[in-house]
Amino acid sequence: MARHTYLCPMRWSDMDAYQHVNNVVFLRYLEEARVDLLLNAAGEKGRAMLDTGVLVARHEIDYKAPLVFRSAPVPIELWTERIDNGSFTVGYEVVDDDESGRTVYAVARTVLVPFDNAAGHTRRVSADDKEWLERFAL
Amino acid sequence: MARHTYLCPMRWSDMDAYQHVNNVVFLRYLEEARVDLLLNAAGEKGRAMLDTGVLVARHEIDYKAPLVFRSAPVPIELWTERIDNGSFTVGYEVVDDDESGRTVYAVARTVLVPFDNAAGHTRRVSADDKEWLERFAL
Amino acid sequence: MARHTYLCPMRWSDMDAYQHVNNVVFLRYLEEARVDLLLNAAGEKGRAMLDTGVLVARHEIDYKAPLVFRSAPVPIELWTERIDNGSFTVGYEVVDDDESGRTVYAVARTVLVPFDNAAGHTRRVSADDKEWLERFAL
Amino acid sequence: MARHTYLCPMRWSDMDAYQHVNNVVFLRYLEEARVDLLLNAAGEKGRAMLDTGVLVARHEIDYKAPLVFRSAPVPIELWTERIDNGSFTVGYEVVDDDESGRTVYAVARTVLVPFDNAAGHTRRVSADDKEWLERFAL
Repeated sequence: MARHTYLCPMRWSDMDAYQHVNNVVFLRYLEEARVDLLLNAAGEKGRAMLDTGVLVARHEIDYKAPLVFRSAPVPIELWTERIDNGSFTVGYEVVDDDESGRTVYAVARTVLVPFDNAAGHTRRVSADDKEWLERFAL
Repeated sequence: MARHTYLCPMRWSDMDAYQHVNNVVFLRYLEEARVDLLLNAAGEKGRAMLDTGVLVARHEIDYKAPLVFRSAPVPIELWTERIDNGSFTVGYEVVDDDESGRTVYAVARTVLVPFDNAAGHTRRVSADDKEWLERFAL
Repeated sequence: MARHTYLCPMRWSDMDAYQHVNNVVFLRYLEEARVDLLLNAAGEKGRAMLDTGVLVARHEIDYKAPLVFRSAPVPIELWTERIDNGSFTVGYEVVDDDESGRTVYAVARTVLVPFDNAAGHTRRVSADDKEWLERFAL
Repeated sequence: MARHTYLCPMRWSDMDAYQHVNNVVFLRYLEEARVDLLLNAAGEKGRAMLDTGVLVARHEIDYKAPLVFRSAPVPIELWTERIDNGSFTVGYEVVDDDESGRTVYAVARTVLVPFDNAAGHTRRVSADDKEWLERFAL
């Protein structure tokens, strides 16, 4: 139904020798956005998935514009866009969107697989998982 | 003609709280492998591209097996797999390959765009670029 | 006269394989606290030092208690504690301080030297520098 | 009796926006040097300490010269310099030392405390610890 927006704090050290936020650091930002989604936005069933375990199976990311350090956080919009029995996909835009317009820095997608840390193997997407995943589906 | 193999040193701190090399760190490894390709394997024309500038336009990466810190470096095989006038693609496998078999930890691909740091804009793939890019084409 | 408090955002990835914030990451936090002091708290003359340049000459840090990732930022109190003609010292406490008590995670101190990036050499602490440095002296 | 030398691999991303190895990254290098000392140089009793646990209680570091990324590793010389019943100190120099002279980039010192991960508390420096610690005392 709705995107979640995570206001991602930047660090001065996220910039590399080219004085832009390094391309690898964007993936770090996406990780923090996912943690925020599960820990703070998705409710008890999201936190349960974070506790039980979840694996990154695939990333894809397109870089659209250079990003420079600033004190204000950079917004990351994220949503779920494919949910099946064994995995699901989270989509993201790293984006400034205000009265002066919309600047997209990166567009990305991550395939995630629920994992059972205690048992040491992957698990199916459960009805409990689907309940919160569907709330963030576009 | 040939893959380049970069022996990527690992750091204990590459592991996250799950005690595996963090998924984001793999992208860091790929960056070091590309730097090694341009700086050490591709000769003078590769170093020229590193000096002039090159942008990451896109990454995709599939994670295949968990990787744990060890003193021995992890090999990264990389090659060029698409070369056109405005960009080219580097492919990679993060892989242990020895008498006991072949373990692939990740497979990835990066789209790169030559950049002119001095002029501040992208530039075409030149004949000089193609000379070394083709040597690493599969 | 007064300490400055920087509310330092944490990242899940700040934890290492021991599931605590890694000791090296504390130094990263201190860097962000210094950037915040110069960029946001010290006014125009602080921003001028950040633009002109400033070198880290020395750190010392004592670790007092383990710190674990959480969504809420960890406060860092910082102040200036020695100002002479060639350098100055910033002191810090990484600390939770609320109705339930005061937990100090680390106490640290950094010696900084003003630098002239354009000229490529260190410079003296100026009257302009001292103006804001003294406002944060204990 | 003897210093241990760890040849520390550098990463291009160790440089910050000032195009030098960032001051915080030096502490990361020291961590890798300690891991190498315990894992590879100190023998079975060093590895035992790494497995049982060891805490960083304090760092101090003086920066002497700027360091820039290169393909060749930067040598870190390290040794033990104080051993008592509850803790010990490791000293380090980050240094190039060859026919063209000796360039010291940083001098540092870390206080370490043996820890019992299973029991969750610190432990005394044992006779087994002292056996290898003394081999690296100056």
